[in-house]
Amino acid sequence: MNHSSRLLQEAVDAFASLPGIGRKTALRLALHLLKQEPERVDQLSNAIKQFRREIRLCQTCFNLSDLEKCAICSDHHRLKKTICVVESVRDVMAIEETQQFRGLYHVLGGVINPLDGVGPEQLQIESLVSRIKSDEPEEIIMAISPTIEGETTIYYISRLLRELPVKISTIARGVAFGGELEYADEITLGRSIMSRIPYATNTE
Amino acid sequence: MNHSSRLLQEAVDAFASLPGIGRKTALRLALHLLKQEPERVDQLSNAIKQFRREIRLCQTCFNLSDLEKCAICSDHHRLKKTICVVESVRDVMAIEETQQFRGLYHVLGGVINPLDGVGPEQLQIESLVSRIKSDEPEEIIMAISPTIEGETTIYYISRLLRELPVKISTIARGVAFGGELEYADEITLGRSIMSRIPYATNTE
Repeated sequence: MNHSSRLLQEAVDAFASLPGIGRKTALRLALHLLKQEPERVDQLSNAIKQFRREIRLCQTCFNLSDLEKCAICSDHHRLKKTICVVESVRDVMAIEETQQFRGLYHVLGGVINPLDGVGPEQLQIESLVSRIKSDEPEEIIMAISPTIEGETTIYYISRLLRELPVKISTIARGVAFGGELEYADEITLGRSIMSRIPYATNTE
Repeated sequence: MNHSSRLLQEAVDAFASLPGIGRKTALRLALHLLKQEPERVDQLSNAIKQFRREIRLCQTCFNLSDLEKCAICSDHHRLKKTICVVESVRDVMAIEETQQFRGLYHVLGGVINPLDGVGPEQLQIESLVSRIKSDEPEEIIMAISPTIEGETTIYYISRLLRELPVKISTIARGVAFGGELEYADEITLGRSIMSRIPYATNTE
């Protein structure tokens, strides 16, 4: 759509540059702003700019952080003896949302994927190894997607750590809670039969 | 979702304040910004702020405008003798998109709707009447939604203009082009039979 106003055109272009927002939605968002107080729109605009300009990665775990050390790493109530290794900051959020984990994280920034040109040196693997050497956690939990690339990454890291006195575990894989067996894919179902667990453990 | 970073939280809140954007989408948009150059994000942020701060309504037709007079009113190629009366700036855009109209517009800013507390004095009706008195167009086209409120508004305006030497028309209503008769609603279908048009007119 061709807008006669340059200001409108630029606002629509700005919104339409975001993923999943087409030009019609962008126009709707721009026109919505006109109904808001200018101060509120300034606030929105500043929040976006400030976020991009000031957010950084925690120098310990590479999670998103406002300061040099993120809120999770600085929290004295978190258990230092367990480090959960994840691909991305979204995974940190997803696990935090479960409220089941009280340890620390380490964000790799992806998984080893030679086809996409992602090797171990592009990921926070070296920093993970030196962190384990210096902080000596008891256990690291690999909360990595069970894809070929994910499994490769887990294998690669486990090889690097095999001389170190740290227990390595992965998150449980199997049929999702609340899911119907007949809709589970065959690999998941097959593997969840192969790696079945004693019933008692399940009801702990 | 509770984010450990205040900057992230504020960016997510900013996006989630927009209509149709939930918290998960807002998070996805915020994380997308991190992959962009800071300069590009500044540009996006500034476009939004500047739009809200600097856009105004054309003092002639009340369309969105960068200057006191909008691009359409300032365009010497537009025909001054026809004014198309619409509810909102979105309608101007929709009609411009058709490339079928070369006259000027007048944006009412809504329709008369007593239930929502919108009376004629909240709309740009007085300015329309004085514009017609001073500019003396030959015709005004009411491109107003064929709802009860829209019809009321058209009737109200036509009463105000009945002493003036201006032709009043409304856009044609009927079955949509490309639409199947059986799916047309009964009021539209009934009225399009009542207000049938000679076949020749249709092929002009």
